[in-house]
This record gives sequence, structure tokens and C-alpha cells, in this order.
Amino acid sequence: MAARSAADASSQEDTRTRLLKTALRLFAEHGVEGTSLQMIADALGVTKAAVYYHFKTKDEITGAVAEPGLRELDVVIEEASRLRGRSARIDHLLTGFVDIVVRHRALIALFSRDPGVTRALTTSWSTRENFSSALMEMFAGAEGDAYRVIAAHAAITGIALTGGAPQFADVDDETLRTHLREVGRRLLGRPRAHGR
Amino acid sequence: MAARSAADASSQEDTRTRLLKTALRLFAEHGVEGTSLQMIADALGVTKAAVYYHFKTKDEITGAVAEPGLRELDVVIEEASRLRGRSARIDHLLTGFVDIVVRHRALIALFSRDPGVTRALTTSWSTRENFSSALMEMFAGAEGDAYRVIAAHAAITGIALTGGAPQFADVDDETLRTHLREVGRRLLGRPRAHGR
Repeated sequence: MAARSAADASSQEDTRTRLLKTALRLFAEHGVEGTSLQMIADALGVTKAAVYYHFKTKDEITGAVAEPGLRELDVVIEEASRLRGRSARIDHLLTGFVDIVVRHRALIALFSRDPGVTRALTTSWSTRENFSSALMEMFAGAEGDAYRVIAAHAAITGIALTGGAPQFADVDDETLRTHLREVGRRLLGRPRAHGR
Repeated sequence: MAARSAADASSQEDTRTRLLKTALRLFAEHGVEGTSLQMIADALGVTKAAVYYHFKTKDEITGAVAEPGLRELDVVIEEASRLRGRSARIDHLLTGFVDIVVRHRALIALFSRDPGVTRALTTSWSTRENFSSALMEMFAGAEGDAYRVIAAHAAITGIALTGGAPQFADVDDETLRTHLREVGRRLLGRPRAHGR
């Protein structure tokens, strides 16, 4: 029985993974708004009930698709918080944030052209309030100097939306990373890293 | 007859203006998505047909509400294009762009929390392709150096979304303007203006 349950759990995990991959492919093709749970079920060759077993709404699916990137950001924030010195924390966070944006640029592009996703992610983001304020606080400093807070916000939104902008889809990852890091450094008042 | 027509035209213009004001008030209260043409008609004390005479869809209304800001931007771009020297053009455009963002910050805040508006404005924005590319080209330079183009995009998105961010609603206009200009200057590699 134990073996059977483990097998079931693993096959369910596979279905969930396949489901998310299929959803992402359909989102890219039809937009998030233009994709229904039924279309996802059809593409997977399962019933709508089988999709429903894993995700009750499309918002849950977009949340799950975004989850890996948000988890990576959690890790980078955690790593940065353990470093000594504000400059070291900012540099680690900036490098990590830019890497995540570039790694998930196709997803950002997909989501930012689809208004419904903004709503879904805003909902899931607001449940992570500590998370987004940790990001801002680490970039801006806890003392909250007005320029720094505004520059940190501009850096986060500017880097994310530029990294995901369709007009830069043909810029290679390394070039995009280099320039987005430079955007962050200029806004946050950090010098270039050694050896670059 | 001519006098009568002029009076009619002027009264229709008034209705249109009142309609847009009412729509904006309802948008702020209920969100764009939560506001119907019927609600706008009720609040104005007119029939839905009277609203329909001026605007066929809610997208047309959001477009009309955004129009003054876009027109101001047209003027600033036109003014900048007549200046001699790239630096003078960038400085004029940056100052003008930041002024427009700060002047319309409540509208940007309202629109950016409402996903449906993104779609409506993207549609109207894409019909102004020359307009948005004029903005980018003037900030980045026609030669298209990769860093400059990316920094210009980050400046435009970062300034607009930070100017309209709800968490800065209590920052006064002059402070916000000063810091957003500094964001733009750092990204576009411009020195501080004299006397600031």
C-alpha cells in the first residue's frame, strides 16, 4: 500500500508538472486570457476534472507558473541578508535579481502582455508583503531616505519590465544581464564590479 | 440655425467633459473593471443611449481620459525635437516627461491597478507607434547603442510606474519630481541641471 501511494503521489506530481508545461505553452500561443481550463485538459488528453484536481482556477495556474522565479528571489534575499555590509547585500541582491529576470524573461514578457495575470499575481504578491518590502528595504536601506526608496522602486520596475520587453527579445542573455546590472548600479549608486 | 447648432455643439462638448469627469470619479471608486456604462449614465442622470452617443465602449472612455497626458507628451517631444544638440533634447524631454507623470500620477495609479486598462491603452498606444519610438529614439539616440536603448526603456518604465505607485501617494509633487528627474539623469548619463 505504501509503495502504491508513493507511486500515485509521483504520478500526480508528473501530471502537475505536465499540466504547468502545457499551460505555459498554451499561454504563449493564445495569451493567458485566451486559454481555458478546458483547452489545457484537451491538450493534455485528460478530463477537465483531472485539471481541477490540481488547480481550481486559472489564477492558481499562473501563480504556480510564476512560483519558481519567486522562490529563487526568496533564496537570493535570504543569502543577501546574511552578508555583512549594506554594499555587499545590495550587490548580491542586484546580481541575483537581474539573473532571475533574465532567466524568466519569456515568462515576464508573456505575463506583462496579459492584463489578467497582473491581477492574479498582485493577489499572490500581496500575501508576500514581507517579501516585497524585504526587497525594497534591502535596496533602499531601512533608514528610508526618499531618493533611495524611489530609486529602488524605479530599479525594480525598470529592470523587470525592460528584461521582459518584447523589443529586447533578440538581445542575448549575457548582454541583457550586463546592461540591466548597469541600470541597477547607476540607480542604486554602486560602482562597477571588479574585473568587468 | 447656425447659432442653434453652435449651442448644441457646445452643450454636447459639456456633456462629454462631464461624462469623462464622472467616469474618472467612478473609476477611482470602483476600479475601471467595476464601472459600467450604465453606472456612468446613472451618476450623470442621463440615459445609457446618451453615454453611447459619445463613447461606444469603456475602452474609448479610458482612452479619452488618458488623452490629455498623451497630448502633453506629444508637445514635449515636438519641442525637444526642435532643440539643437542631443543633450538639450534629452534634458527637455526628461523634465517634460517627469512633469507629465507627476501631474497625472493619480491617473497612472488608477490605471496601473486595473488590468483592463492596460489592454485598452496598449491598443491605442500601438496606433501611436511613431510616438513611442520617438520617445525612445530621443532618449537613446538614433545610433542605437545597446546600453542606451535598454537604459532609456528602464528610465521610461521606471519613472512612469514609480510616479504612479500607491506607496508614494503621500510624497509631495516637488519631491517626487526632483527624485524622478534624478532617476532619469542617472540612467541617461546626464549631469544635474545648474542651480538645483
